[in-house]
Amino acid sequence: MSVKALVLNCTLKQSPADSNTEALARVVMAELERLGVGTQILRVVDHDVLPGVTSDEGAGDGWPAIRQLLGNAEILVIATPTWLGQQSSVCQRAFERMDAMLSETNSDGTPAAYNRVAGVVVVGNEDGAHHIIGTACQALIDIGYTVPGQAWTYWNKGPGPGPEEYSNSHETEWSNATGVTAARNLFAVATALNAHPMSAPPAA
Amino acid sequence: MSVKALVLNCTLKQSPADSNTEALARVVMAELERLGVGTQILRVVDHDVLPGVTSDEGAGDGWPAIRQLLGNAEILVIATPTWLGQQSSVCQRAFERMDAMLSETNSDGTPAAYNRVAGVVVVGNEDGAHHIIGTACQALIDIGYTVPGQAWTYWNKGPGPGPEEYSNSHETEWSNATGVTAARNLFAVATALNAHPMSAPPAA
Amino acid sequence: MSVKALVLNCTLKQSPADSNTEALARVVMAELERLGVGTQILRVVDHDVLPGVTSDEGAGDGWPAIRQLLGNAEILVIATPTWLGQQSSVCQRAFERMDAMLSETNSDGTPAAYNRVAGVVVVGNEDGAHHIIGTACQALIDIGYTVPGQAWTYWNKGPGPGPEEYSNSHETEWSNATGVTAARNLFAVATALNAHPMSAPPAA
Amino acid sequence: MSVKALVLNCTLKQSPADSNTEALARVVMAELERLGVGTQILRVVDHDVLPGVTSDEGAGDGWPAIRQLLGNAEILVIATPTWLGQQSSVCQRAFERMDAMLSETNSDGTPAAYNRVAGVVVVGNEDGAHHIIGTACQALIDIGYTVPGQAWTYWNKGPGPGPEEYSNSHETEWSNATGVTAARNLFAVATALNAHPMSAPPAA
Repeated sequence: MSVKALVLNCTLKQSPADSNTEALARVVMAELERLGVGTQILRVVDHDVLPGVTSDEGAGDGWPAIRQLLGNAEILVIATPTWLGQQSSVCQRAFERMDAMLSETNSDGTPAAYNRVAGVVVVGNEDGAHHIIGTACQALIDIGYTVPGQAWTYWNKGPGPGPEEYSNSHETEWSNATGVTAARNLFAVATALNAHPMSAPPAA
Repeated sequence: MSVKALVLNCTLKQSPADSNTEALARVVMAELERLGVGTQILRVVDHDVLPGVTSDEGAGDGWPAIRQLLGNAEILVIATPTWLGQQSSVCQRAFERMDAMLSETNSDGTPAAYNRVAGVVVVGNEDGAHHIIGTACQALIDIGYTVPGQAWTYWNKGPGPGPEEYSNSHETEWSNATGVTAARNLFAVATALNAHPMSAPPAA
Repeated sequence: MSVKALVLNCTLKQSPADSNTEALARVVMAELERLGVGTQILRVVDHDVLPGVTSDEGAGDGWPAIRQLLGNAEILVIATPTWLGQQSSVCQRAFERMDAMLSETNSDGTPAAYNRVAGVVVVGNEDGAHHIIGTACQALIDIGYTVPGQAWTYWNKGPGPGPEEYSNSHETEWSNATGVTAARNLFAVATALNAHPMSAPPAA
Repeated sequence: MSVKALVLNCTLKQSPADSNTEALARVVMAELERLGVGTQILRVVDHDVLPGVTSDEGAGDGWPAIRQLLGNAEILVIATPTWLGQQSSVCQRAFERMDAMLSETNSDGTPAAYNRVAGVVVVGNEDGAHHIIGTACQALIDIGYTVPGQAWTYWNKGPGPGPEEYSNSHETEWSNATGVTAARNLFAVATALNAHPMSAPPAA
């Protein structure tokens, strides 16, 4: 089995601006690569994802190409910054478009997100990570993704002013180690579901 | 004192499409008008609000005009649909841009949102309203808005399939009455703060 | 493999009072039983679970017996009512005590909740289910449980006044069917993890 | 006008154990005292608050005495630790009992929490404060409390291991200053509402 992972980087900053969110997501990706997983990262804000809740909102919509990548990936990682304690508008836009997956199916008749796993990476200049992990997991599980235990990591600088940028240093050691664990758990559960898949619900 | 209210309708649907969210927001607006408040509603998705966390993201940004309206309104109502249990991406985009208000001040030196009140209107085809009221109030209070007691209303159809559209009927009676109460409480606290304003923090 | 499921009913009402939360949880249990899973339901409020964050808070503590049941169950279902939009205090008390599982291990050296799956059942007289599914899943995933896609169900009566009691009727058809799906997904992923377990992290 | 403030300390630790949550709450109290407000702090876990959603759950219930204090206080501060990213079970227990206030009135006929203000203090060994501020404010606003802008403060140590105890030091400077601002805003809005009260809704 060749497992593929897609990371949706939901930063507000268009390329080529530096993204702290991407920096931590790449720690997860590096471990996935080491485990033999093919990884791809996509910065959602670089694409013109139109508002809506279908998989194709028509002319000029950047989502259909992303939707196709989701269909090829057994592992999805949602990586988002924290703004006012919440996941970014770019992240929520992606979830709104993924809402359509609720009524789409895989080739074996299972709902589109069944037998796929998802994890979460949160970076911020302040508190909010646990909340975002909760809201993101709720959306992902609702759609049909399985979320393995401890399949997330986060970094922020704690309360008050201070350096706002994630950098690969002593201070981010815990976040990095937690990200490596997340990658392993995502891979382990993706592999288990590949060998023993959830089946399609019987026709109503 | 002449009080002004601004409603930000955060539906995903551009004008002139019908907006269920606007339908319930207009119940709050009608009561505010009856109390002598001048009201205005703006559909955020009709404007090109760029991603970012400043008050002006440059050429083509639709936010600066909205930011100016915020500065003129003693009462703000955030009206949002529910998607996957969360406030809309359009709503979160507005909050991200309002993040800049944290370091902006009124003419009397108070933070930009002090002595202003805010309320929330949530409409959805499923459960999520209390959560959104929580996340929206957290963002608004963080920025500096005061949220009066019971300054919100919501409507959704409960669990499972059914009619997804808000319509002014027996079924929305509770939502409408709750919206009238919200309008009165927003007006009462706005009036109280106008007469007895919060003062600027002392220079650090 | 003989799979066991434990349901923690987090109602505020002591036995033998009727519990709406239990009524919906029993729909999930019935399907689990049909799949060959041995099930057990426990009403947490009947036991004197002391405040704290260890697995044994000393004399009179009702938690150690529950902690042992958790160790025997591959499937955990958290069933909770909705109060002011939140999971019950009894549910949060259980999570606080499960916090200790973060540093406990299974006989194979994996963290105590690895290779176990969890689902959520929410009942309420008003909106709040999606939020509670989010906060509960965040806690469970944090501890190490894997949450399968669509491993939850809920029932509430929608906005405003109305009948507050879950009853097995046309009105709860969607909640029941969703509960059956949840049971199947819990069983499928528990089985997959049993055959292909997540492994222990390497010694630090 | 003589304003009174009540702080409900929702730590899991019974007296006389040290409470980090209380340490930060006392910063808010000190500023309230400086402004002439009479303050009182109560450790909820020291009292036997029974599960339920009425104001008096019968023999042995510790809540009725607390409910009376709530009726005497124009300012309420909810102070809670963070466990698994959530407000404590003791905090949620208090909210469940305050649910009954929805149908209780003040002597002037207003709902019991009208013309009262509330703020939030959160302490934790990890991320979760913004979320808890959101869930607590949602509950408080639902009940009828007005939440002034920036009427909260929090402290935690950021991601990963480290000193878990709040101590009045350079590291908590921001949390302390934010707590002083919270106290001023609570006092300002309580004073404004005392002079210009919200009125009772007309008989239905």
